[in-house]
Amino acid sequence: MKLHDDNYRGFASDNYAGAHPEILDAIAAANGGHQIAYGEDLYTARLQEVMREHFGAQAETFPVFNGTGANVTALTSVLPRWGAVVAASTAHINTDEGGAPERVSGLKLLTVDTPDGKLTPELIDRQAWGWGDEHRAQPLAVSITQTTELGTLYTPAEIRAIADHVHAHDMVLHLDGARISNAAAALEMPLRAFTTDAGVDILSFGGTKNGLLYGEAIVALTPGVAEGLLYLRKLNMQLASKMRFASAQLIALLSDGLYLRSAGHANAMAARLRSSLEAGIADGSITGLSFSQPTQANAVFAILDPAVSDRIRERVRFYDWDRAAGEVRWMTAFDTTEADVDAFVAVIAEELRRAA
Amino acid sequence: MKLHDDNYRGFASDNYAGAHPEILDAIAAANGGHQIAYGEDLYTARLQEVMREHFGAQAETFPVFNGTGANVTALTSVLPRWGAVVAASTAHINTDEGGAPERVSGLKLLTVDTPDGKLTPELIDRQAWGWGDEHRAQPLAVSITQTTELGTLYTPAEIRAIADHVHAHDMVLHLDGARISNAAAALEMPLRAFTTDAGVDILSFGGTKNGLLYGEAIVALTPGVAEGLLYLRKLNMQLASKMRFASAQLIALLSDGLYLRSAGHANAMAARLRSSLEAGIADGSITGLSFSQPTQANAVFAILDPAVSDRIRERVRFYDWDRAAGEVRWMTAFDTTEADVDAFVAVIAEELRRAA
Amino acid sequence: MKLHDDNYRGFASDNYAGAHPEILDAIAAANGGHQIAYGEDLYTARLQEVMREHFGAQAETFPVFNGTGANVTALTSVLPRWGAVVAASTAHINTDEGGAPERVSGLKLLTVDTPDGKLTPELIDRQAWGWGDEHRAQPLAVSITQTTELGTLYTPAEIRAIADHVHAHDMVLHLDGARISNAAAALEMPLRAFTTDAGVDILSFGGTKNGLLYGEAIVALTPGVAEGLLYLRKLNMQLASKMRFASAQLIALLSDGLYLRSAGHANAMAARLRSSLEAGIADGSITGLSFSQPTQANAVFAILDPAVSDRIRERVRFYDWDRAAGEVRWMTAFDTTEADVDAFVAVIAEELRRAA
Amino acid sequence: MKLHDDNYRGFASDNYAGAHPEILDAIAAANGGHQIAYGEDLYTARLQEVMREHFGAQAETFPVFNGTGANVTALTSVLPRWGAVVAASTAHINTDEGGAPERVSGLKLLTVDTPDGKLTPELIDRQAWGWGDEHRAQPLAVSITQTTELGTLYTPAEIRAIADHVHAHDMVLHLDGARISNAAAALEMPLRAFTTDAGVDILSFGGTKNGLLYGEAIVALTPGVAEGLLYLRKLNMQLASKMRFASAQLIALLSDGLYLRSAGHANAMAARLRSSLEAGIADGSITGLSFSQPTQANAVFAILDPAVSDRIRERVRFYDWDRAAGEVRWMTAFDTTEADVDAFVAVIAEELRRAA
Repeated sequence: MKLHDDNYRGFASDNYAGAHPEILDAIAAANGGHQIAYGEDLYTARLQEVMREHFGAQAETFPVFNGTGANVTALTSVLPRWGAVVAASTAHINTDEGGAPERVSGLKLLTVDTPDGKLTPELIDRQAWGWGDEHRAQPLAVSITQTTELGTLYTPAEIRAIADHVHAHDMVLHLDGARISNAAAALEMPLRAFTTDAGVDILSFGGTKNGLLYGEAIVALTPGVAEGLLYLRKLNMQLASKMRFASAQLIALLSDGLYLRSAGHANAMAARLRSSLEAGIADGSITGLSFSQPTQANAVFAILDPAVSDRIRERVRFYDWDRAAGEVRWMTAFDTTEADVDAFVAVIAEELRRAA
Repeated sequence: MKLHDDNYRGFASDNYAGAHPEILDAIAAANGGHQIAYGEDLYTARLQEVMREHFGAQAETFPVFNGTGANVTALTSVLPRWGAVVAASTAHINTDEGGAPERVSGLKLLTVDTPDGKLTPELIDRQAWGWGDEHRAQPLAVSITQTTELGTLYTPAEIRAIADHVHAHDMVLHLDGARISNAAAALEMPLRAFTTDAGVDILSFGGTKNGLLYGEAIVALTPGVAEGLLYLRKLNMQLASKMRFASAQLIALLSDGLYLRSAGHANAMAARLRSSLEAGIADGSITGLSFSQPTQANAVFAILDPAVSDRIRERVRFYDWDRAAGEVRWMTAFDTTEADVDAFVAVIAEELRRAA
Repeated sequence: MKLHDDNYRGFASDNYAGAHPEILDAIAAANGGHQIAYGEDLYTARLQEVMREHFGAQAETFPVFNGTGANVTALTSVLPRWGAVVAASTAHINTDEGGAPERVSGLKLLTVDTPDGKLTPELIDRQAWGWGDEHRAQPLAVSITQTTELGTLYTPAEIRAIADHVHAHDMVLHLDGARISNAAAALEMPLRAFTTDAGVDILSFGGTKNGLLYGEAIVALTPGVAEGLLYLRKLNMQLASKMRFASAQLIALLSDGLYLRSAGHANAMAARLRSSLEAGIADGSITGLSFSQPTQANAVFAILDPAVSDRIRERVRFYDWDRAAGEVRWMTAFDTTEADVDAFVAVIAEELRRAA
Repeated sequence: MKLHDDNYRGFASDNYAGAHPEILDAIAAANGGHQIAYGEDLYTARLQEVMREHFGAQAETFPVFNGTGANVTALTSVLPRWGAVVAASTAHINTDEGGAPERVSGLKLLTVDTPDGKLTPELIDRQAWGWGDEHRAQPLAVSITQTTELGTLYTPAEIRAIADHVHAHDMVLHLDGARISNAAAALEMPLRAFTTDAGVDILSFGGTKNGLLYGEAIVALTPGVAEGLLYLRKLNMQLASKMRFASAQLIALLSDGLYLRSAGHANAMAARLRSSLEAGIADGSITGLSFSQPTQANAVFAILDPAVSDRIRERVRFYDWDRAAGEVRWMTAFDTTEADVDAFVAVIAEELRRAA
């Protein structure tokens, strides 16, 4: 039963999009007959191999339901009860997970303000100290997000520098890869180039934002770093009984380059949005608009009068990022079309003109 | 990509089955275009109405990922931090959730041994005492399972008696409805007859075991009883971004009687298995087999020599329940066929004969 | 300012008694001047040595505030987040700590009914199974209480048998020693005979019930078994800033045999109570009284008509243990006098006669 | 047994001091005989009255062991599981409690940088937003410290302005009063002037830093604001069995003005230290020293060359506050003498001269 308009698409979130048709095909193929529940099925076994093709032979993969589940469970698995996580203050685990890291696992977050959502060894050092002092929550892990919540991108060298710094202090490096495919597409590099090969110890591999119905995976990259993931996934309520369907989706995403096709397209649509708007600014047809972050993946962060934002939003949905600063976030998805972008640019330009 | 044999089905668990074709159709219909994430979509709004048709106008529905998530989040929402839950010692929340109630929410379970997985007011009283004494975890909720983990069934009158007893002590009644559809089919009654109308305050509505890809729902039946479910679902990592797909599945399950067709068929297959075996026992063609529980829904609990069980299991998969006692559990699902049952009976009979 | 009657003593709990005068002397001696806070003081350093004299050179001691804090922190230190504790259902951690193990640390308790509060290898096996199955909270520790909550006593051989069984399954053995001094006095053995030398890995050493103002200690006996106690004590809110005073009390208790003098006296008073009552039963002067447990330390568990209990209690305070069964608990303390016992026996006899 | 030098005192912490002699007297008076355990004793009853004399007839008092226990338990009692606490980033609950708020109760802290350790309505607003959005931990309480961790002081008007702002947003105001007596002495006002009468809802009343052996109290000031403190204190492992001794100490502190005499003396010694050093700076006898915070209670925050700090510290113990900035903290206590201060000033001056 269809209740909605298939032709409506906005710029609010890549979570607003549905599932890629190849994903639905993969689910249909995995259906029928009986498969052992809770991860002993053939699809989850195959997913282990597929992930190892991408992340190396030592990778251990644990499918879970959603990104919060992946992040909290991954971080819990690498930390003792007294461990704390150094993260950017804009990190999803800090701002958008309802306090799940603190509440479910008692993880203290030690946050650092950043200009662009990216940590550096120097920024990490603002919180990475006090080991051995029982009065201080012990900073034993660092979490970075790729691509970041601000649409920016770490280079492999930047991640390697962080990893070396983190490991020099016997800490563990976690990567929140809710948009890891967008990073691979933007960098034009294999997934392992900026994860396994750059020193990341454990990652949350994102699927939902890139065209799955649901489904992420925790991938432990460094042997022995993540203890008890089997148990933690269960007690964190992230163990799917019919896991074959989560695994089948992830296999499909990672086979035949679907992850790159979808994420690359989303990136291209953001680039088109950014360049169209910049062209308008350059030729004077658009005024009252500027950008607060570079567009390195599938997000455009822009600054404009909030009253104009609201008029644009009445026609095409998106979110404020920092309303006091007039900052908004425009996201593209695997299903955003060139026509969607061009129409949105026209709406933005029109409303800015009306307000000028 | 199909990796498995569509024609293989066993008697291990209703979780081994896949998804009903009508469920896949519902997902396909809900796909395409953009829908607001995290539950503000049209499908989740429609699900609210559908649930209210079944459970009454006061029902508030919160889709979640899995049964453990539903149970732990529902119980947490009705309990203060000092609350404890009275449950049968065989309850899924006690035996099969990896300690999630204790670990995620600090819920102490006060368990009672039962002959058949069913609580009664008298059994509840073994643990329901000590209110006001801060040394005792406060028994403020009771959780029952319908149908139970032992395949047995509460009558509406039995649930009403429990609810009255529970409410007389200012406690809250939770129902774990992982197999609630099997109960409705077995009782031949509307869902509300043994939930809302029998005094249940909050329930975990099960979908996965009855032919969904994934997806359960917490349904708050008593106004005001469940505080903060909006927040608790999020912080318990059970909030799906693309919730439209969970909701669409649940709508499909509850529309056109699919929940009854599927569960009723599973129940009928268990009844066929039981009666075929009993006929064999009666005519002497089957020996060395008895039953430890009545078959009131989609499970058969049987007793036989573990060595024979193992030989049967080599041919058709199922689980031991209490190996020391020789007790096994045989489950049927929405997709179990009459031919599957008849072939399984033949295997059981053959292996019992060989061992005799 | 004295608000109470120094001459009143009852049989409710060894917690009703105050502090031994030698304990107050030790506090006064430790007072004055400045000492480093949080455990780097000279008294805590000396306590380490004192404890090692009693428990062996490998012992690591962590003073804490109270018994619940000692038990929960000790158990947490030996368990991963997915660990569970096998314990008698009468264990203090199960019945009297307000759910602290579950709530503070997410520890699931796997309880076993016992006749006398004592576990055995066979009883442990009722819950010690299911390793490797993520659906089952993993039984990785066993907790016993010495002397037990029912006033009974393990022999060193019984503890050794338990320890061997526990270690054979790679589990850890914790001993709740809230009344460990009563055990030492009853067994007439050094503390290490039934702890370190019997295979106990970690213990809660009790001070409060044996004449301290406050103060217990976690003592890790097996090298490496308890990880992170330094941090866990702090985050469990059990780190005293002026730790010198807790340590000074424990030093005083363990020096010059105060622990044995006090506990031995309490035991003797319980024995006097038991034998006086038994003499009355034997000579017919006392009727309607029997005993439900042996008196092996400082508790007498008796059975009598609850109505008579209530009349006795109006004159001398004590607690019901199992009111439905008419079972009461009479505890003696370091300050119980022979005259107290004799007067109590007279009251009991008188009220039983009046009811006869 | 005395192991230490009664005549040594430093400037490291008011926790390094011992107990005031009147406190030991109060304990001795409360000793002897039996008193009901766990808070039903006569001293705890009397403490309720004493606290009400100071904080108003509606005050409900719950003695606990230590400051972390008081803070975490108080905040937990005013917050649902989805609540978060707005606090200064320098707050003790954020920096010095080993993550206990997050780990024990899952409380997320929403921190704000401040110049002087003091929040204002404007600073609170940086984190107090997002109510109703389940992705954001809900800011439902604000915690301030009086006197602050930086030795500064809120006026009653400043607290009233915060309380009005907090209540306008339906939040709750907690005051960490680890040094509340120092505030009363500095303000020369009754305790209630800047707590009950200024709109504080619940407070942690500090005793240990002002001359108790141990012991703090949670005082609920606003009727109904703190639910379940009876249970939370127990499950947070803060319930003393022999509570009479904690209560007797608090009674003694609050009777005959001991709290003011002790705290006022400590404040005077800090003022003496500050003014002596300022005099030396003014007359040129001291160079290379400045101050980073005003001295409003019993702390002096100074800036000097870390190498010089280290030489001073070899002679008199104290802590670095921000070593990179050369900032140190000098604390005075109830037992600091004028001679101690003068000798310390001489040492500081001498070492600064040697380095000049």
